[in-house]
Amino acid sequence: MPKLTNLELVALVDSFPYPTESRCKAEASSLYQFMSHDMKAVLGYLLPSVVDILRDLKQSFVVNDADQWVGIAPEYDTVEKRSKMMNDLVINLRDDKKFKILEGWRSELYSIFYPSSTLYFTLERSACPIFGVVQYGVHLTAFVPASDTQKLKIWIPRRSRTKSTYPGMLDNTVGGGIGYPYGVFDTLIKECGEEAGFDSELIKEKSKSVGSVSYYYTRTSAAGGESGFLQPEIMYCYDLEVTEDTPPPKPVDGEVEEFYLWDIDRIAEELAQGNFKPNTALVTIDFLIRHGIITPENEPNYLEIISRMHRNIEHPLR
Amino acid sequence: MPKLTNLELVALVDSFPYPTESRCKAEASSLYQFMSHDMKAVLGYLLPSVVDILRDLKQSFVVNDADQWVGIAPEYDTVEKRSKMMNDLVINLRDDKKFKILEGWRSELYSIFYPSSTLYFTLERSACPIFGVVQYGVHLTAFVPASDTQKLKIWIPRRSRTKSTYPGMLDNTVGGGIGYPYGVFDTLIKECGEEAGFDSELIKEKSKSVGSVSYYYTRTSAAGGESGFLQPEIMYCYDLEVTEDTPPPKPVDGEVEEFYLWDIDRIAEELAQGNFKPNTALVTIDFLIRHGIITPENEPNYLEIISRMHRNIEHPLR
Repeated sequence: MPKLTNLELVALVDSFPYPTESRCKAEASSLYQFMSHDMKAVLGYLLPSVVDILRDLKQSFVVNDADQWVGIAPEYDTVEKRSKMMNDLVINLRDDKKFKILEGWRSELYSIFYPSSTLYFTLERSACPIFGVVQYGVHLTAFVPASDTQKLKIWIPRRSRTKSTYPGMLDNTVGGGIGYPYGVFDTLIKECGEEAGFDSELIKEKSKSVGSVSYYYTRTSAAGGESGFLQPEIMYCYDLEVTEDTPPPKPVDGEVEEFYLWDIDRIAEELAQGNFKPNTALVTIDFLIRHGIITPENEPNYLEIISRMHRNIEHPLR
Repeated sequence: MPKLTNLELVALVDSFPYPTESRCKAEASSLYQFMSHDMKAVLGYLLPSVVDILRDLKQSFVVNDADQWVGIAPEYDTVEKRSKMMNDLVINLRDDKKFKILEGWRSELYSIFYPSSTLYFTLERSACPIFGVVQYGVHLTAFVPASDTQKLKIWIPRRSRTKSTYPGMLDNTVGGGIGYPYGVFDTLIKECGEEAGFDSELIKEKSKSVGSVSYYYTRTSAAGGESGFLQPEIMYCYDLEVTEDTPPPKPVDGEVEEFYLWDIDRIAEELAQGNFKPNTALVTIDFLIRHGIITPENEPNYLEIISRMHRNIEHPLR
């Protein structure tokens, strides 16, 4: 397999066309906008196969074929009404086996926001791509610094070979989705304990919030379930500077097979071989940029990479 | 004056509508695309007042009013031909006093790229906004770290009161445009010496490349010259960690009145008062995000700020 460039790695997850690309119009032309009940906000994009199902639910949705949108019906004017309607719907879709993606049912709620920063409804995690709504995660990179940055080392886990998605692939030290009703930092603490056995005091004292990355993903079969669902995603990023003496991360919940402490050369090689779960490759590239390892002098696509991994998501946000 | 939020500070420079905003269509409707000689790439956006002038230069430009674009004529098929034609043109525009912005003539060439990473032509710096082409800069933030991040201090210069643009305003420790034929790091070294008296060895050893910020600026009179020119801009960012013992930055070339070593509380206050030159406020906010000072827990517009300060610029890039 030819080696992947950093830009190719970013493009694997930032795979939905940009509004200004001419192919955007063509590719998006079959998609419908998923509108809020007041018809003011676009919450995501829907595939025609989903629209066909919602079309029959006239009490819950309004479908406008001329302008290609589906709105939540106006009477769903509270968080509770919307959440119950959506929850009942996706349980029916699961029980009727309408979508393969729902075989990965998580029994975990995600939050959808509108207006920005305001909870609009909650939705079963595995059903989010069906409605194309924005998803959120937290990712932490634990590293051992070095005066020569090429000798900096990062703790990299290998995902369990029994995981349903991306089995055996490399990952960020810690990463997880932000479920309802948790906050960003709460989720970080929780995931750090569950996935790596990091003490909450260590994370509170030593972890550093360092920004976020975002991309607009067109799902492939590697993500599980049907191909083609849209998944705009934002990940809050944290660094954790440790020493060789800090108690190392350890597999706790069976999701991780083993943690490696690898230097930059090894990580660059594994990235180029495509051995990282794609969205964690993007977080790793962001880390390498922020730490002066990927620079304008050594990365010909520096600007495009940075812009694409902070993509403007044109929906209301958390 | 009411205090400015961080999002308002970013919006001051990221002021051109996004392609997906409905007001974009309306506001952009009077603009013409500035096309490459092969009619394949959009290099920037032109105001109607500029189009009216180019319309009369039939040997150099092709104007298409139906589709609202102006292209460089096909026969300008080398860097040298394009650079000479554009240079002759802007000298005429200056001598004929067609644009106030050219009163700020810099006798410094900027590079325009197409395809990305490939020099397409060079252009007098002060004329770039007339053609709406992408501009590039390097900005460095020198800081004294602290275990309590609120006690971290940054070296902040006050611009000379005699500067033609933004006199007396606060700035990044070092910042400057990337002129032809300099590279990114060359420019950093040069500006660090010229503006702050930093030794080149210090910069080579201790400065760290940490990413880039980008925005799409609609110029106002505060920037000098006519209002309304479009100025997409990308700034490469560098951090320089120093100690209280490192020889401090000092005014060298008369562009800086004085350097202050200020803590976070003071800097946040000066930002909110609107005392920073707008694009250097954006670089400072990026620094505060990367260093865990502005976080998802204390900044309600965290995601929008990060996305907007890494705006996708829809033109060929350096």
